[in-house]
Amino acid sequence: MDDKVNLAEKLASFDEAFTPKIVATYNDNKVQVAKTRGEFVWHSHPDTDDLFLVVSGQLTIQLRDRDVVLGPGELYVVPRGVEHCPKADPEAHVLLIEPMGTPNTGDSPERDAAAEERI
Amino acid sequence: MDDKVNLAEKLASFDEAFTPKIVATYNDNKVQVAKTRGEFVWHSHPDTDDLFLVVSGQLTIQLRDRDVVLGPGELYVVPRGVEHCPKADPEAHVLLIEPMGTPNTGDSPERDAAAEERI
Repeated sequence: MDDKVNLAEKLASFDEAFTPKIVATYNDNKVQVAKTRGEFVWHSHPDTDDLFLVVSGQLTIQLRDRDVVLGPGELYVVPRGVEHCPKADPEAHVLLIEPMGTPNTGDSPERDAAAEERI
Repeated sequence: MDDKVNLAEKLASFDEAFTPKIVATYNDNKVQVAKTRGEFVWHSHPDTDDLFLVVSGQLTIQLRDRDVVLGPGELYVVPRGVEHCPKADPEAHVLLIEPMGTPNTGDSPERDAAAEERI
């Protein structure tokens, strides 16, 4: 973890969707890359904001009142407590930053979708 | 601050080097964009890591024992307390994440170089 991280290389090293991989740490946060295909689950994180930066493809972050559509080089921070559901058609590659220990499914009952792994 | 951020658009909106602009907040951190031209000052941040992601150009993060050379789509987290001096020739555009209140010159005596501004 003491070297630079090439996001495209890290993203090329796995294929599963919605399984963020930790590529670095920043203070008590995990810096992750993930592939998004189709729709995730509606959830919120009551204790933290959620930073998304699109590396490639198009990611739509559905909020209850609107959609935030992100292309490459665009970022959006979902404020803590705000329900959201990311989706991509067909696929987006994203950088995510969340505190250590934050499940990617937030408060969703679908907690078995939560996954994190270091690469 | 409640909308998406296009990094290239934000970077096109100013020209000064070494004057990070806050484009979003993530918990207690400022998400910034900056232009780097030439060499900054040697400094460290005793209380925080320092996240750099290159958007365009090439950034060399000089450490006391080696250089970390970053191109577009590459990131590096300078661990807290580690002396570093970023440089770019001729110019690099970067995304920076640091806690609110962190001067970009860290513990350097050149504190008047510290600057931050919201765009």
